[in-house]
Amino acid sequence: MSSTLKDEEVGPSRRARVRRLPERGRYDRATVDSILDEGFVCHLGVCSPDGPVVIPTAYVRVGDCIYLHGAPANYALRRAVDGDSVCLAVTLVDALVLARSAFHHSINYRSVMVFGVAHEVEDFDEKRTALMAFVDHVVPGRSPDTRPPSDSELRATRVVKVDIDEVSAKVRTGGPKDDPEDLDLTGIWAGEMPLRVVPGPPLADDSAPVTVPVPSYLLAYKRPGGATPAEAPA
Amino acid sequence: MSSTLKDEEVGPSRRARVRRLPERGRYDRATVDSILDEGFVCHLGVCSPDGPVVIPTAYVRVGDCIYLHGAPANYALRRAVDGDSVCLAVTLVDALVLARSAFHHSINYRSVMVFGVAHEVEDFDEKRTALMAFVDHVVPGRSPDTRPPSDSELRATRVVKVDIDEVSAKVRTGGPKDDPEDLDLTGIWAGEMPLRVVPGPPLADDSAPVTVPVPSYLLAYKRPGGATPAEAPA
Repeated sequence: MSSTLKDEEVGPSRRARVRRLPERGRYDRATVDSILDEGFVCHLGVCSPDGPVVIPTAYVRVGDCIYLHGAPANYALRRAVDGDSVCLAVTLVDALVLARSAFHHSINYRSVMVFGVAHEVEDFDEKRTALMAFVDHVVPGRSPDTRPPSDSELRATRVVKVDIDEVSAKVRTGGPKDDPEDLDLTGIWAGEMPLRVVPGPPLADDSAPVTVPVPSYLLAYKRPGGATPAEAPA
Repeated sequence: MSSTLKDEEVGPSRRARVRRLPERGRYDRATVDSILDEGFVCHLGVCSPDGPVVIPTAYVRVGDCIYLHGAPANYALRRAVDGDSVCLAVTLVDALVLARSAFHHSINYRSVMVFGVAHEVEDFDEKRTALMAFVDHVVPGRSPDTRPPSDSELRATRVVKVDIDEVSAKVRTGGPKDDPEDLDLTGIWAGEMPLRVVPGPPLADDSAPVTVPVPSYLLAYKRPGGATPAEAPA
């Protein structure tokens, strides 16, 4: 797969450049954004005096930046806004790739790495907008159906943003790439096993009354390439 | 959820201790191992002179250590074995949690963080065993059905291991935890949307002849809690 370099290309900077298997590198924002918009959990890496710390955390892309949030005491977020550089990775697993040789077994994936400096968002309007964007990123259509954040909740939430500036994507698609001499091993099944994220039936909260039916945005919920709860296996 | 501290407890060291929402922390090896054995992609964090680097990579647990592998030129793996401390995170997403308030929206997840020093595996027997363990971790039963690694393939693969020593798990389960005053908002649907990883039908490689039927270990393939390809929606 050749890399696609377009007008809206960003980077690659030295550290964002895909070094291993550079033919899998993509630097156009359309590819980067499509991956960022499909995922909703990233892994945030910071360097502490004791070494690296990597935490999973939800994110949302809004325009040219990525928002993260958490409690003010969250260690990785606190370090992130202390001015250190951060690295964010988003990874989507699409398929297992079974080759004839053990060596060429692989995984089809789409991943993004973002490098940058994290800035704390102090403005309450921007924090509120970002938090509602989180809700709608994970469950499109959900935010109008919620009690919005109060000022004290906004104070109790650290919101952090990272510009999408130094960024790269890495994509593997397609079947196994066996060595030519292994293609004669026709008795070994080779190919791909696709993996999809599929929602199960929604479960109403049983700790307090829920008097409304399951909303349409949940009945229609699917991750890209996936199925709705009604289409899913029992 | 209370933390379960058992005889086989490991840690927590200072950096492995779950600081935020400590009631979600688990340190028993049974919980840690069940999460490590369900996932197969981790995020490896290392500190470089330019800041943190986080990469997705496959892993397998064998006993008390985690194996990673990659090309000798892989930057993060190379830094890892240069003696720096590493952090590995494994994250499984189980459900979206929809609360009445935007603030209490959450995600049910099970995650593990491992801190330690990575050691390069030089011994060919151990490398071969680890690489076959990778194959069988991702697709149980697959390794006898492959052409095993040659010595030159072993030389072309860096295998790294990290001891499971400083480790913690963090687990959220159950429905939304709304504030008591929000429970009167009975007109807002609240609950959980489970998410599962489901395999699609296996796709035979179309670049060279595959003369055998889809093997039984693929027809029966499922991720824990998921469905087989035959049970999955079209």
